[in-house]
Formats: sequence, C-alpha cells, structure tokens
Amino acid sequence: MSDLILTTYDWVPEMPRGLVRDLRVRWALEEAGLPYRVESTPFRDRGPDHFAAQPFGQIPWLTDGDLTIFESGAILLHLGEKSSALMPADPRGRAEAMEWVIAALNSVDLPSQPWALFRFMRYPGESPEAKFVEDFLKARLERMEVVLANREWLAAGRFTVADLLMADVLRQVDRFNGLAKYPACSAYVARMTARPGFLKAYNDQMAHFAAADAA
Amino acid sequence: MSDLILTTYDWVPEMPRGLVRDLRVRWALEEAGLPYRVESTPFRDRGPDHFAAQPFGQIPWLTDGDLTIFESGAILLHLGEKSSALMPADPRGRAEAMEWVIAALNSVDLPSQPWALFRFMRYPGESPEAKFVEDFLKARLERMEVVLANREWLAAGRFTVADLLMADVLRQVDRFNGLAKYPACSAYVARMTARPGFLKAYNDQMAHFAAADAA
Repeated sequence: MSDLILTTYDWVPEMPRGLVRDLRVRWALEEAGLPYRVESTPFRDRGPDHFAAQPFGQIPWLTDGDLTIFESGAILLHLGEKSSALMPADPRGRAEAMEWVIAALNSVDLPSQPWALFRFMRYPGESPEAKFVEDFLKARLERMEVVLANREWLAAGRFTVADLLMADVLRQVDRFNGLAKYPACSAYVARMTARPGFLKAYNDQMAHFAAADAA
Repeated sequence: MSDLILTTYDWVPEMPRGLVRDLRVRWALEEAGLPYRVESTPFRDRGPDHFAAQPFGQIPWLTDGDLTIFESGAILLHLGEKSSALMPADPRGRAEAMEWVIAALNSVDLPSQPWALFRFMRYPGESPEAKFVEDFLKARLERMEVVLANREWLAAGRFTVADLLMADVLRQVDRFNGLAKYPACSAYVARMTARPGFLKAYNDQMAHFAAADAA
C-alpha cells in the first residue's frame, strides 16, 4: 500500500482548533487502521501550490500514491473504498452509508455551518436571515432527533463513515450549545466522540497546532 | 436490470419549479440512458411513508429493486456506479469526479442555497448575517471562476456527474442573477443546461407539475 499523506495547515488561531476539517480525516484513518503521515501547508500565505491541490485554498487534502484528493467528504469516501471498517461492502449497506454521508454534508451541514459561523462571529441574530438559518437548522435537528432516538448507528446497523461525518457536523452545533433541546443528537455526539479513533484524532490535531505555537 | 423509480412531489408552487431536486436525478438518468418512471408523493400531506423513505420529509428518492435511496447527491453517485457516462471507471477519473461532486454539495451549495433562499424570501439583505453569506458565496464563486476559465469540464476531461451537479447548484445562483460578474461560471451553466439531457429533464419536471395544476 502506498503512503497516505494528509495535508493540513501549519497553524490556525485558537478558536477553530478541534474543529478543523483534517480532524475527520485523521479520525477515519484511525478507525480504518491505515498508516499515514501529516504534512503542513501555510495558513497565512497560500500560494499557487496550495490552490493547485485545493482549488478553494482550504484544507485538507490527501495524497494517495499519485492521486491527490480534496474535499474532506470525498477523502472519507475514498478511504471508505479502502476499508470496510468505514464503508460496508454490500450494496444495501453502501447505499445507506452513502445517503447519510451526503445527508451530513448537504442537508445537515448546510444550515449547521452558517449557524455555527454566525455564533462564532457573535452576530446579533435578530435579522430575518439569522432567523431563517435558525429555523432551517431546527427543522433538520428535529428530524435527526427522531432518527437518532430510534437507532444507535445511521447505516448498516454498525459504525460507518456516515456516523463519523454526521457526528463531526453536529459537533460544530454542539460547540455553541445548539443541541441542548435534542437529547438523542447530544447523546449520539457524546457516544461517537468517546471512540478511541476520535480522541486520537482530536488530540493529534490539538498537538499539531500547539507545536506550531511553541515553534 | 430492475426498474428505476424516481419519486418526487405531486405538485409544488410555481416559484421553485425548474429547480426542484428531482431535476438533477432526471438529468442523470437521461445522460446515462437508463429507463425509469416517475411516481408522486403528496407535497401537502407528508405521511409516515414519506418520512420512512426520506427522513427529512423531502424529495427525491430513488427505488432501485429492493433499495430505496434518498439525498439527490447519493442518488447521483449510485447512478454513477451504474453508468460510465456519469462516473469514470479509472481511479483518477473517479477521484476527480467525486471531489467535485462533494465540492458542489458542500463547498458551493453551502453558501449558494441560503443566498438563493434569502433572495427567494425577499429579505432586505442588510444584516451582518446576510452580508456574511454574500461574502461566503463571493469567495466560492471567485475560485470557481478561476477553475472554469481554464477548463471545459470539472473532472476527467469530459462530462461527468460532477458537472451535472455543479451546474445544477450554480443554476440556483443564476436564477437570482448572482453569476453576472462571473462570466466563466455563467458560460458553464449555459453550456451544461444546453445539453439534451438537461432540457428533457427540465421540460419533464415542468410538465409534471403543470399536469397537477390541470388535474
């Protein structure tokens, strides 16, 4: 197997630490037991090499032999093809994992990310646009609450990359206390983030950025 | 091959017609030349059967033999596994198509959908939240403009499901005149939506909802 190289920023400000998108890829690599190493790209000066690897100038990207893949969701699906720990091999299990991966990235992250960013920016939250996003998120969480009240895992009756991603998306809501009225969502995030793979990924990300502070 | 059945609403108000999410699935089925039929679920009274098939109470879903798949993005990837007209078979082509599918669903739709919905709702657009979403979209479109100024297709040097989805996501921005300053994005949407598969899908969706008006 070729070496897997995960590229993230060399440093980020304190606030987003623990939520930077390389975390979900580290987590998947830990769950799959795939060996990898981490490389850094400058946070402050993003040059042509950065944009060649990641057209939006973001991170992460994964190098797998002669392939370079951007978008954390696409990286997770790529790793799913390498490991049945992440993605079931049978058609039904695959379809279930895929639909919940996409649900996390589109149906749930779509209101969650703006909602969390508005909180992060400490906006007043009084505008019709703020209320729209709040209601949009609420509609999604109410449905996720019904789903998660009735099952331990989203797909295939076991842990998959869909749980990893959905939990990581819901974490950003939880960070700003947005799951308080959704006990099943809250318990799900707590359960997923108690997994050794998450804790290793989280601690490694925190250590990576802390090392940059010290340097 | 088992019958493919695409389920959409029986009716929707006039405004969203032409942008309802079954369109992208119709388009993919037309591009792939896969036979399918369309069934309807009530727009107004969404019952337990609806939520069993689509946990957010939305559409579309696809029935493929004994599988039912929700999330239009997941349906497109499922169809990609059935047809190389949508998804290349080689690892590099697959990886490129996958990263741009996810970029469309997460990086680009994430600001595009709230932006378009704010316009649809005729919100004043003066709040910090409105400006944040406007700037978020602008940052993405500026990068898409660089990408699309330099290539005809997003992945694998040819039409793939990634173009279908990205064009469909950018269409909702175009509908509210948001691509005026992005000529390459604008030309890309015009090029993709001139394809016979898009036109068939668009006309079929419009006819489906018009038939409900007449009924």
